[in-house]
Amino acid sequence: MFRGFILFPNDKVKGLVGSKVQIEMKGEKSTLEGILEIADEYLNLHLMNTTEIVDGKKVRALGSVLVRGNNIILVNPVNE
Amino acid sequence: MFRGFILFPNDKVKGLVGSKVQIEMKGEKSTLEGILEIADEYLNLHLMNTTEIVDGKKVRALGSVLVRGNNIILVNPVNE
Amino acid sequence: MFRGFILFPNDKVKGLVGSKVQIEMKGEKSTLEGILEIADEYLNLHLMNTTEIVDGKKVRALGSVLVRGNNIILVNPVNE
Amino acid sequence: MFRGFILFPNDKVKGLVGSKVQIEMKGEKSTLEGILEIADEYLNLHLMNTTEIVDGKKVRALGSVLVRGNNIILVNPVNE
Amino acid sequence: MFRGFILFPNDKVKGLVGSKVQIEMKGEKSTLEGILEIADEYLNLHLMNTTEIVDGKKVRALGSVLVRGNNIILVNPVNE
Amino acid sequence: MFRGFILFPNDKVKGLVGSKVQIEMKGEKSTLEGILEIADEYLNLHLMNTTEIVDGKKVRALGSVLVRGNNIILVNPVNE
Repeated sequence: MFRGFILFPNDKVKGLVGSKVQIEMKGEKSTLEGILEIADEYLNLHLMNTTEIVDGKKVRALGSVLVRGNNIILVNPVNE
Repeated sequence: MFRGFILFPNDKVKGLVGSKVQIEMKGEKSTLEGILEIADEYLNLHLMNTTEIVDGKKVRALGSVLVRGNNIILVNPVNE
Repeated sequence: MFRGFILFPNDKVKGLVGSKVQIEMKGEKSTLEGILEIADEYLNLHLMNTTEIVDGKKVRALGSVLVRGNNIILVNPVNE
Repeated sequence: MFRGFILFPNDKVKGLVGSKVQIEMKGEKSTLEGILEIADEYLNLHLMNTTEIVDGKKVRALGSVLVRGNNIILVNPVNE
Repeated sequence: MFRGFILFPNDKVKGLVGSKVQIEMKGEKSTLEGILEIADEYLNLHLMNTTEIVDGKKVRALGSVLVRGNNIILVNPVNE
Repeated sequence: MFRGFILFPNDKVKGLVGSKVQIEMKGEKSTLEGILEIADEYLNLHLMNTTEIVDGKKVRALGSVLVRGNNIILVNPVNE
């Protein structure tokens, strides 16, 4: 239907696999930070070594986390 | 349309069936904890022995619960 | 596209038709309780004899109610 | 894909066309009341003679209103 | 799949193109008012000469604005 | 299914690629401002040189940001 129109995650999110990313979720005050293990075309993500960050401080270690793409506000690569 | 691109739940969520998981839902302060009985490709879940957790304390036993995938913020496996 | 992968409502929600269920909705403090008359694959529901429950008390009789599936947080069967 | 499984609005919502309904919307304190003119399969609605109701009182006449189905919490027929 | 069932925007929203409309958005206190330039089948809208209205007063001129359909609560034609 | 009906982002959002835009997100008090690098048909966006704006002041530099389309309230081109 949109031939020639590249869907978003294929070219941008895939390039972030293996990198550290910060995720802001809808209606959540905290940010998730983790290594992006895999993503699908709906921006559903699997993060490893995930930590929950509030006001710039790590408040909780979550480890392996599945994140539902439709509730993601934004994905921000962390430059290290 | 995305041949070669594996959808999220097939390889990650399926591996959690039979395990204890914690679920954070959109706009809810409480967390659900239960045994993942089944999941579909939209992250719709059926949990057994579900309890509602607020501030780390079990406040309510819900038993069998169907959870709507699009309102899930994240799924976190519980290591026991 | 997901042959062999059974969608959620077909095997779980259908088994609840005719039973009393409690429904928690996104962004609502109240819970709906009613007899599940029918459900479709998106978890859209038709409830009969529906009552609205706040803090465990029935506050309003709604009768026949159509509920939009994407705004459901969870469905909890009521054991009587 | 779901042959034999009747989608929700076709048999329930269509039966309400021409009747007065109350609509509760996500994140809104007010309720909409109007005559259901037409509905589509996503529960998108066209209401006529719509009024906005807060705490049981009509506070605003809106007339013709298009309502986005995914933001509807529930549809409640008004018995007159 | 729904032959004979006309989708919502085709017959209703299209009739509003070129007219002034008010848009209520999910989780927003303000209302958008503008000339409807174009709409697609998901109620995604392009408004021209858009102003933001709070408590009946124009507080901001936004000009050309793209509005995401799934976050629209309702569309209300403005009779002038 | 909607032949002859042009989907929203193809003709409007594509025209904004390379320009500075402001994005209002659902449930967020801040606005994002950045250069639109790419958009897909769901209004998923990739912004470059992104800054977060609160009450008209730039409060944070985010750089490269992926934004989930379904959580966008509106896109507003910035005239410079």
